[in-house]
Amino acid sequence: MKLATYQDGSRDGQLVVVARDLQTAHYATGIASRLQQVLDDWNFISPQLQDLYEALNMGKARHPFAFEPERCMAPLPRAHQWLGAQACASHVALVYPAPGKALPGGRRAVALMAPDGASGFAGPRARIAGLDPAQDIDFEAGIAAITGDVPAGVAAEQGLEAVRLLMLVNSVHLRAVQARELERGFGFAQSQPCRTFSPVAATPDELGEAWRDGRVHLGLQTSWNGRKVGLCDAGSGMQLHFGQLVAQAAKARALHAGCVIGSGALGNLALEASGDRGDLPKGFASIAEKRAVEILQEGAASTGFLQPGDVVRMEMKGRDGVSVFGAIEQTLA
Amino acid sequence: MKLATYQDGSRDGQLVVVARDLQTAHYATGIASRLQQVLDDWNFISPQLQDLYEALNMGKARHPFAFEPERCMAPLPRAHQWLGAQACASHVALVYPAPGKALPGGRRAVALMAPDGASGFAGPRARIAGLDPAQDIDFEAGIAAITGDVPAGVAAEQGLEAVRLLMLVNSVHLRAVQARELERGFGFAQSQPCRTFSPVAATPDELGEAWRDGRVHLGLQTSWNGRKVGLCDAGSGMQLHFGQLVAQAAKARALHAGCVIGSGALGNLALEASGDRGDLPKGFASIAEKRAVEILQEGAASTGFLQPGDVVRMEMKGRDGVSVFGAIEQTLA
Repeated sequence: MKLATYQDGSRDGQLVVVARDLQTAHYATGIASRLQQVLDDWNFISPQLQDLYEALNMGKARHPFAFEPERCMAPLPRAHQWLGAQACASHVALVYPAPGKALPGGRRAVALMAPDGASGFAGPRARIAGLDPAQDIDFEAGIAAITGDVPAGVAAEQGLEAVRLLMLVNSVHLRAVQARELERGFGFAQSQPCRTFSPVAATPDELGEAWRDGRVHLGLQTSWNGRKVGLCDAGSGMQLHFGQLVAQAAKARALHAGCVIGSGALGNLALEASGDRGDLPKGFASIAEKRAVEILQEGAASTGFLQPGDVVRMEMKGRDGVSVFGAIEQTLA
Repeated sequence: MKLATYQDGSRDGQLVVVARDLQTAHYATGIASRLQQVLDDWNFISPQLQDLYEALNMGKARHPFAFEPERCMAPLPRAHQWLGAQACASHVALVYPAPGKALPGGRRAVALMAPDGASGFAGPRARIAGLDPAQDIDFEAGIAAITGDVPAGVAAEQGLEAVRLLMLVNSVHLRAVQARELERGFGFAQSQPCRTFSPVAATPDELGEAWRDGRVHLGLQTSWNGRKVGLCDAGSGMQLHFGQLVAQAAKARALHAGCVIGSGALGNLALEASGDRGDLPKGFASIAEKRAVEILQEGAASTGFLQPGDVVRMEMKGRDGVSVFGAIEQTLA
C-alpha cells in the first residue's frame, strides 16, 4: 500500500491512503490519524489500511479525493531516529574525503552510518531556505526505509523483514561545513540541515519484482533546473542492501518502530541513457560527486553548488512508467 | 514543577506530576497523557500542570499516591532529537583523543555536538544490558535540557529561554568502539548505546537561585559500587551554558519541541570534599576521565571499565539537601 501525510496545521499531519497510480487518496480517519501510530502497532493497524487501499484502488472507497502532492508533509513528519548510511561505495570513495586522497580511518561504506534526530522531516515541495550558498549547498538523492522494532544484534535477513515502508529522500548537505564536521568526528549536527521526502511511502510489496535482494531495482532520476543529471540504479548502486543496513544500525542497540535509514547518495554506475558504462559515474546524485569526477578527470571542478532559485527534482518510475513515490521538487530560496 | 512518566506498557508511558519533595505524585490525566503532548503545546498545557503541582505540594490534590522512582520510564521516553554536547573543556581535553595527544581538527568543547535519535531513552533503574565488557563500558554523568521550539540562528539569550525542563543523564559509552567511530567522523551510531535519565524532569524555576547564567549551580554526585567517585559542580564545570548549547544546536537548523541537549560528562574541577583544587580533576564523571588522569600522572591507567554487577548511581541535591531529580541507579547486567 501507499501512504502519505497531509498538512493540517499539526506537527504530525493527517494520514492518508494513496491509490497505486497516485491519482486519488482517502483519509485514514477511523483507522489511524498519524503514521507513527501505525508503525507503533503495525500488525494490528496496517491490515486495516491495506483494506482501505484495495477499496481505493478498485474505486470502491467511500470518500476518495484527488491526491495533491503539494499538500503533503513528509510521510513521517517527525521520527525518533534517523541513520544516514553510505550504501554506495562509489559515492564514498569520491566524496569522502577530498578526491584523490586515501580514506582515513577505515572510512568504508560498510562502516559508515551517521545518526541524527528527525524532528523536522520536510515535505516534497518544501523550499530549501535559510542556508548560505557560500557553504556549498548540495543535494543527495537516495532511498530511505522506515523500520519496525528491531532487537539489537539481528542478522541481515531479520533486518530486512523489519523494513515497513520505502520513500525517496533528498538530504541537503552543506559541503563546506561537512568537511569541518568530518574532521571533528562527532557527526553532522550542522552540515545536514534538512531532509526532504517523497509525497508517498510505499510498502515493499508495491515494488513487485523490482524489490529483491533488499534493494529497489529501479532508476532514481534526478533533475537540476530541468536538466536530467542522474539516473541511478537504486539496485546495483547499493553495495549494501537494506537488511544489511538495518543490521548495521542495530549492531549495538535496538531500533524502535519508525526508525528511518537512508541509503546515502546513490551510485551512478549502471544506468545511462547511452547504455555506456565507465569506471567513473557519468550522471550524479549529488553535486559533490560530479565535482569529484571533474577534479579527477580535468584537475579542477567546473560545476558549482546550488544557487538561489535552483530547482532540484527527484522521481522514480516503475517498469510501467508510473511514478512510485511521487516526486520531490524543491527550490533553493 | 516536576514531571515524571510512569510505565504503563505503552511506548510513551503515563505522565505524572511529582511533588517538590518527591514523596507523592498525581496522574496528569485530564490534562495530558504524554510529556511530548505538553512540549508540543507548552504555553497552553503547562499552566494546568503547574496548578496541579501546586495543589499536590499543598496536600490539596485529589488522588495523590506515593511516588515510586522504580516505576518510572525516562521523563521523555522517546524524543525526536538528541544532541550530545561537550560543555566541559576538562573532559574534552582529557578524553578526546587519547590523553597527551593534541586535539585534532579543532576538536574544542565549543565545536562539539554529536546528534542522534532518541527512540529509546531509558528509565532511572534500567539495567545496562546486552553490552560486551571487552568494549570498555563507561558511564558519563551530565545534565540534559529539554527545549521548546527554537528557530535556526538564535542567540544564546533566546536559546536559554527555550529551556523547558532539566534532568540528569547517564550516557553509556563503549570507549573501544568510540575510538573507531571518532576516526571515521560520522558520529556515534554504535558507541553510545543507551542513555538513562533521572526519574524526574524539573522546570528551571524549581532550582531557585541555583539556576543562573544558564547553568545548574549544584553538585552532581556519582557513586560506583557504593563509593563516591565524583561530586561535580554542574555550574562551574560547564564552560558553555545551556543557552549557548541551544544556540549552537540551532546554528544551521531549527530545533523542535522536545529536543534533548546533553551537557556531556561534567568537569570535576571545583567541588572536592577536601576543598582542594588542582589542575586535574580528582573526582570523575566518567571512567575515561579517571583513566586519562592516571595515564598523565602515573604513566598507565589502573582503573578498569565497568564490569558485570557494577552499580552506578547519580544524584543531585539542592541546598536544602533534598534530591532535585531523584536518583539514577543502574546495574550492569
